Amino acid sequence: MRSRWFTPLLILTTLASAAAHFLSTNEPIRFTLASLSLLLWAALLGKATESVAHYAGERLGGFLNATFGNAAELIIAIFLVQKGLFDMVKASITGSIIGNLLLVLGLSIFCGGLKYKTQSFNTMLAGHNASLMLLAVIALFSPAAFDNRLDQSGMQSFSLIIAGLLIVSYFLWLIFSMITHKKELGESPVMEAPTSGVSQTSNHFEEPEWTKRNSILLLFIAAVFVAIQSEWLVGSVEAVASALGWSELFVGAFLIAIIGNAAEHSAAIFLAMKNRMGAAVEIAVGSSLQISLFVAPALVFISLFFDKTMDLTFTSIELAAIAIAAFIATSISRDGSTNWFEGVLLLIVYAILGTGFYLV
Amino acid sequence: MRSRWFTPLLILTTLASAAAHFLSTNEPIRFTLASLSLLLWAALLGKATESVAHYAGERLGGFLNATFGNAAELIIAIFLVQKGLFDMVKASITGSIIGNLLLVLGLSIFCGGLKYKTQSFNTMLAGHNASLMLLAVIALFSPAAFDNRLDQSGMQSFSLIIAGLLIVSYFLWLIFSMITHKKELGESPVMEAPTSGVSQTSNHFEEPEWTKRNSILLLFIAAVFVAIQSEWLVGSVEAVASALGWSELFVGAFLIAIIGNAAEHSAAIFLAMKNRMGAAVEIAVGSSLQISLFVAPALVFISLFFDKTMDLTFTSIELAAIAIAAFIATSISRDGSTNWFEGVLLLIVYAILGTGFYLV
Amino acid sequence: MRSRWFTPLLILTTLASAAAHFLSTNEPIRFTLASLSLLLWAALLGKATESVAHYAGERLGGFLNATFGNAAELIIAIFLVQKGLFDMVKASITGSIIGNLLLVLGLSIFCGGLKYKTQSFNTMLAGHNASLMLLAVIALFSPAAFDNRLDQSGMQSFSLIIAGLLIVSYFLWLIFSMITHKKELGESPVMEAPTSGVSQTSNHFEEPEWTKRNSILLLFIAAVFVAIQSEWLVGSVEAVASALGWSELFVGAFLIAIIGNAAEHSAAIFLAMKNRMGAAVEIAVGSSLQISLFVAPALVFISLFFDKTMDLTFTSIELAAIAIAAFIATSISRDGSTNWFEGVLLLIVYAILGTGFYLV
Repeated sequence: MRSRWFTPLLILTTLASAAAHFLSTNEPIRFTLASLSLLLWAALLGKATESVAHYAGERLGGFLNATFGNAAELIIAIFLVQKGLFDMVKASITGSIIGNLLLVLGLSIFCGGLKYKTQSFNTMLAGHNASLMLLAVIALFSPAAFDNRLDQSGMQSFSLIIAGLLIVSYFLWLIFSMITHKKELGESPVMEAPTSGVSQTSNHFEEPEWTKRNSILLLFIAAVFVAIQSEWLVGSVEAVASALGWSELFVGAFLIAIIGNAAEHSAAIFLAMKNRMGAAVEIAVGSSLQISLFVAPALVFISLFFDKTMDLTFTSIELAAIAIAAFIATSISRDGSTNWFEGVLLLIVYAILGTGFYLV
Repeated sequence: MRSRWFTPLLILTTLASAAAHFLSTNEPIRFTLASLSLLLWAALLGKATESVAHYAGERLGGFLNATFGNAAELIIAIFLVQKGLFDMVKASITGSIIGNLLLVLGLSIFCGGLKYKTQSFNTMLAGHNASLMLLAVIALFSPAAFDNRLDQSGMQSFSLIIAGLLIVSYFLWLIFSMITHKKELGESPVMEAPTSGVSQTSNHFEEPEWTKRNSILLLFIAAVFVAIQSEWLVGSVEAVASALGWSELFVGAFLIAIIGNAAEHSAAIFLAMKNRMGAAVEIAVGSSLQISLFVAPALVFISLFFDKTMDLTFTSIELAAIAIAAFIATSISRDGSTNWFEGVLLLIVYAILGTGFYLV
Repeated sequence: MRSRWFTPLLILTTLASAAAHFLSTNEPIRFTLASLSLLLWAALLGKATESVAHYAGERLGGFLNATFGNAAELIIAIFLVQKGLFDMVKASITGSIIGNLLLVLGLSIFCGGLKYKTQSFNTMLAGHNASLMLLAVIALFSPAAFDNRLDQSGMQSFSLIIAGLLIVSYFLWLIFSMITHKKELGESPVMEAPTSGVSQTSNHFEEPEWTKRNSILLLFIAAVFVAIQSEWLVGSVEAVASALGWSELFVGAFLIAIIGNAAEHSAAIFLAMKNRMGAAVEIAVGSSLQISLFVAPALVFISLFFDKTMDLTFTSIELAAIAIAAFIATSISRDGSTNWFEGVLLLIVYAILGTGFYLV
């Protein structure tokens, strides 16, 4: 990513996207250019967050990384909530969760597994991730389970209380994982040498390429542009979906999710191929936990400021997809050890779900 | 509990409850006094059972503790079955299972976790508890799964056969855990020193305060009074629920369950704070296993002696709550190690379910 | 099995079955004789496969054993597909999966557990089996989850794509388990002495009783007769079911499944009682994985050659049974250690499901 082509490419696509937005009415072109530009800005946002995290120290850095990591998704979702497109918000939350648990994690485990026979990470972290993932599944299922017994205002209250409880859980998890049990959840020291023979364990993060001041500046600039491109992108999503004959569900759950998670994708695979599987798992699983325990509930509260209030009732297909992704990812990562075939399993499940969403 | 205030308080509330029952028609007062008195008698019953278990030896003692531990729930349930209030019976069974797995276990793990960084217990016991809990979930789900394919008499037969199979499983489990694999399921010897610094592992049970003869006498007296207070309590439950505008489901699944499990609550939290997490888990999980594998099936057979026969079909909300509680409790306890945050997770799930049952 | 009575018995039942098929119209007699003959030929097929595997080396042998092990089921199913009896095909697939996971595995663990206190096997294999079983459950649930959103041709495409992905998974699993990670998935070296006192670990497979040439010859002869008897058996199944008043579902899911899995039954129990629990688990779980990841998808493709195309939509009862069997078998085997009580749990669940299917 950090090549000399990056900056010119970023400026070029941003200008092109702006030109298309203001001058053109061709929705596919506007959509494609906004996607490209968003993808590059999201990557820069991820890198800037990482750099800021480096200077701010591990604890605060981890918190910043966790909070800004999903900034793109959150910003896209807020624009959708404002427009009252709740179905697409929920589809994109679903897509982000399953995209992280199946595509990002699957590709990381598969690519890492091609280079290293077995990769391992902290089993206590794996166990806690599994329990938190289960909490998320339970919380998203509960409104559906009580659906036919509650009227609309009852469901509204139920959604708000669940949302509040999830946000509390998320902050307690930050306290637990970054303060009281920081050491216990640290990366596993057991690292295997690459099968290629050369043993070069790179335990140190690379030096950041920007100064502290520049990192913070870049973080803000990137966040602003991610927001702008997200708004433009959302504006043409519906037109493109109907033009291509794709269902809203497929666009929301797969297309937007893949664009929004672009930063996580590249970072996690990169880390897995450096045999830092613990960090790769933390990005993929941690990101889907943040979406379900923080972003989704926060959107319920944010919707209170707009015309219509969003509840937490997902469709049965979305719930099935989330539960399926959570169960298979948990089953594979629970033992704190992965290999190429486990990556394949996740990708196969992603393909099955993707096919289903496409055909609907 | 064993303070000098206990006996006078017990006598006072029992007399007050009797006075209200025979003289007053104010249902809330009758309900409150019967609840208070039942709570105290249940505590005495628990203590007496523990004391008898001490004298009778570990094996027989364990069996007595397991059998009398849920006496209060069983007695309450029999009165409800006699009245034909099957919906409330099933709600209270549900409430007892999720109350033990989420509230009792959650509070124990949380309170213990505030004092000790990590608490551990026998992983083989945790694994078997998980499998038994899964059997209970499967057995309670099966009638619902076959519901629209069976007529009433078919469902009756199915319920009776499932009930018989569950009771057989429960007795084989007693043989397994108390005879053939007693040693393998023993408490884990690994105990961590308290984080406060002072290492005081108290491995020995305290001396009982009563003689063998007095313990048995108290056990019988307490059981009789628990039965009486339970009957009075059930008599006013419906009136109170409609007066307060609470649903039968919420009263049965939360109010009655918390009262009926009062003894387990105090004992388990007490043990967890003494770093005997294995014993605390055994009370909480063991109690919910006994409810689902012995009390619920026994009630099906007991109902044969009354006018209407009870089957094992639970509502979809009850089944969802039981499955949710079983899965999260299993996910958290499977590794034989707990901490404060895992207690929080269980309590959050209990709060979500409680909100749902209240709003229905 | 290998007694001097076997060959005469095989010839006798085959002749009797042929006589009944061509001369009699008494369906129960035709059914019984075809079942008996099929059972013996299936046993011979299993033995011949094992013998061929011995000569062909471990890798190719494992593949042959895996491929021919379910030959009987596949052949029966093809005849059913040809007749368009898709419901019975799916019932027999369901029955084969739950029969292997609950009855075969349950009896093996129970019988082995009566002789040895604790039996252990490779935990990595147990974990991968669990993840593959979960993939199978997900793949069979997905068509049902999307059912009310897809039209018939959409469901057809979805079934074909899922079937293709499952077959790809199965072949990658063969590469993984037999080539890239063969050593890691090997049998656990930790073996406990029998509780009877005498320590006689028999790690070596017995010498095959036939020459290489005879083994291959027998394999082909047995396969041909299994096919013939299967066709005869299927011909009288419907008549027998309606005569006895049994539901198609019960006949397909229990009767045909038990007959078709006869070879696996005897082999797995035999191995478990020799304390080779790893091999017993591999037969039982491996066979149900092959049914769900290879046989079921292959039947979808095979049905393309006949009049009507089969899809992968199972009934909710069948899906519930498969998921239940997969979850309890996974819960019990995940720790790589078994005992008699865990066998009882599997058999109890099989009895519950069998009762339900019988009563429907």
